Amino acid sequence: MELSQRAINMPSSPIRKLAPYAEAAKRNGIHVYHLNIGQPDIKTPECGMQALKDIDRSILEYSPSDGYLSLRTKMVSYYAEYGIYLSPDEIIITTGGSEAVLFAFLACLGPGDEIIITDPFYANYMAFAISVGAVIKSVKTSIEDGFRLPPVEAFEEQITPRTKAILICNPNNPTGYLYTRAEMNQLRDIVKRHNLFLFSDEVYREFIYTGMPYISAFHLKGIEENVVLFDSVSKRYSECGIRIGCLCTKNKMVHEAVMKFCQARLSPPLIGQIVAEASIGVQKSYLRGVYEEYVDRRNFLIDGLNKIPGVYSPIPMGAFYTVAKLPVDDAEKFCIWCLSDFQYEGATIMMAPAAGFYTEPGEGRHEVRIAYVLNKDDLAKALTCLRKALEKYPGRL
Amino acid sequence: MELSQRAINMPSSPIRKLAPYAEAAKRNGIHVYHLNIGQPDIKTPECGMQALKDIDRSILEYSPSDGYLSLRTKMVSYYAEYGIYLSPDEIIITTGGSEAVLFAFLACLGPGDEIIITDPFYANYMAFAISVGAVIKSVKTSIEDGFRLPPVEAFEEQITPRTKAILICNPNNPTGYLYTRAEMNQLRDIVKRHNLFLFSDEVYREFIYTGMPYISAFHLKGIEENVVLFDSVSKRYSECGIRIGCLCTKNKMVHEAVMKFCQARLSPPLIGQIVAEASIGVQKSYLRGVYEEYVDRRNFLIDGLNKIPGVYSPIPMGAFYTVAKLPVDDAEKFCIWCLSDFQYEGATIMMAPAAGFYTEPGEGRHEVRIAYVLNKDDLAKALTCLRKALEKYPGRL
Repeated sequence: MELSQRAINMPSSPIRKLAPYAEAAKRNGIHVYHLNIGQPDIKTPECGMQALKDIDRSILEYSPSDGYLSLRTKMVSYYAEYGIYLSPDEIIITTGGSEAVLFAFLACLGPGDEIIITDPFYANYMAFAISVGAVIKSVKTSIEDGFRLPPVEAFEEQITPRTKAILICNPNNPTGYLYTRAEMNQLRDIVKRHNLFLFSDEVYREFIYTGMPYISAFHLKGIEENVVLFDSVSKRYSECGIRIGCLCTKNKMVHEAVMKFCQARLSPPLIGQIVAEASIGVQKSYLRGVYEEYVDRRNFLIDGLNKIPGVYSPIPMGAFYTVAKLPVDDAEKFCIWCLSDFQYEGATIMMAPAAGFYTEPGEGRHEVRIAYVLNKDDLAKALTCLRKALEKYPGRL
Repeated sequence: MELSQRAINMPSSPIRKLAPYAEAAKRNGIHVYHLNIGQPDIKTPECGMQALKDIDRSILEYSPSDGYLSLRTKMVSYYAEYGIYLSPDEIIITTGGSEAVLFAFLACLGPGDEIIITDPFYANYMAFAISVGAVIKSVKTSIEDGFRLPPVEAFEEQITPRTKAILICNPNNPTGYLYTRAEMNQLRDIVKRHNLFLFSDEVYREFIYTGMPYISAFHLKGIEENVVLFDSVSKRYSECGIRIGCLCTKNKMVHEAVMKFCQARLSPPLIGQIVAEASIGVQKSYLRGVYEEYVDRRNFLIDGLNKIPGVYSPIPMGAFYTVAKLPVDDAEKFCIWCLSDFQYEGATIMMAPAAGFYTEPGEGRHEVRIAYVLNKDDLAKALTCLRKALEKYPGRL
């Protein structure tokens, strides 16, 4: 009995090593400020919660493999507000955005096929690539450049006969970067020139903090058939637990292939679909409130970070993460030390070492990803902890 | 832009070809008795439904990647009643039983690795095997032998250096067969001798209609580390839609590997876990009522089938399916014809052609899988439709 090679190659979560230290700290009565995960503390909309109470069925039965038509129809209207024009037949409901990524990879990437992603990237893309045997070729972005897209040549250099797709996450997790119109056009041209799929993870669409326009992959002309969009209601309605995402494509061949994987797993979660459908109707004031809260948190956090001596964070334009550079020998060691050897007034912080988001060993060694999913009071206390920890940390540079 | 080879190889659902004909029939006002799917018409337990109403949270957040400890702890008690002794750490909550199968395959089967399954089998096993690049080697069972396990030699013949696992579904979908103690011991010996994983899909545990004891893979001594059990609350509580299943293993290496795939998809459905946890506490009278209903349906259906001239069905010992032989040239053609060219008093039947459950082309050509998930009145009408259809079908043998 042996594991598959892919199981051995599968990365652990970037915070896996930290988890036991966090548990130990909590057992010792230390309060841990979680800056390490993308679980918002924002309330789920009332209409979503009410939909649960209103369920009036006698059987919790299978839903269609591509999800309820009523939900897909509502999503059509939702997307139309963003200038993305889809029909219900171009939307497949998935079990979270995660399943959308996995199924697109299963459908489009064979073993040895290559996919280009900008580095650093959401660590689970690697997990899904390994699951299907695909190879990630990375195009580096750096904190010094604010993680902006490198010139076309950097992409062209990575393209081989095995290249099948480019994957972007926009706004970006972990960097908070938002692609400009010029950058999106650049991607369009590469995709078109080399006849590649453009996988676009846009789950943070609601979280854009600049006056800059949001350019969806579906806004790009001439590559409509190349685009496969990944989405999720998790972040926008604070419904991470219901596991409802979707995959959108106008490419009938891809749609049909993805549907085979959908049929194999029978159906996406029924109750989550009911909650998601109700939540799409949430009052604009809810989304505006959430947005304003995040703008505020972002400004507060980034300002606070950059005031700590030796710390640098670019200003993220979207999502609710930032990658910050710390004056430490090794960010993972520092993150563990914060949990195991440090406390300030009974509290400490948990952050995600950024190395786990980079493909090259050694990259991101001085960086952490910080999720600003806490309220400002807690963020203030967390910032104080960070400042104090950096003052005391023995491996400070 | 090309699909992956695996997407091209992925089988369509056995009833995919029939679906448009069923829709057309319904549009023409014909009532279709669905004998083709495993969606029970049984009511979900009241306590499961009530748990939905009682949800008192302000955020529908991520749950742990292996599911809530409280649910896993309840499952421990549930399994103990069946003489299966597990700790909560040996149970991983999955998104339906489907995900348990996929993750076990991902963890244990590399491309080219082989897995032995008795033929005919649940069609989606093939889909998951293709998803991970594994090869299914089948050991034939036949309707003439009541689908009982063939002698050891038939398994030994299929074992090669690439064989990693044997997969059983017990009680069996699609055949309704229940493995005897002697057969289970035989499997245990093969698994032990060749150091294989024994994947055991036991989602129909509650549906056993003979005095014969139910032998779980976990009842077998000496192969505790080899066993990976797949389970689901879908059928037992009529909760197919909530997508809650689990994977149980005492093998720490497998557990750790499966957890990496679990972490990549973040978490199983939150709300489904709440419903499942409440449902485990359902009164015994609910389960007894469901059981008696199915015993009744089984007797009624099998009796009715075998009274139709030329039709033969073995007596299924478990689950809620049977594979029946029909006096027709081609069961798929017949199933389509029932939907497109036949009706009796405004109604017709939809059945699953059994060929889709066999690996060899041509096998099961005269057989259909019938799910007895309808009440007796409807089953009676469906049986009448079948009898009348067979009288009129031009391809009758």
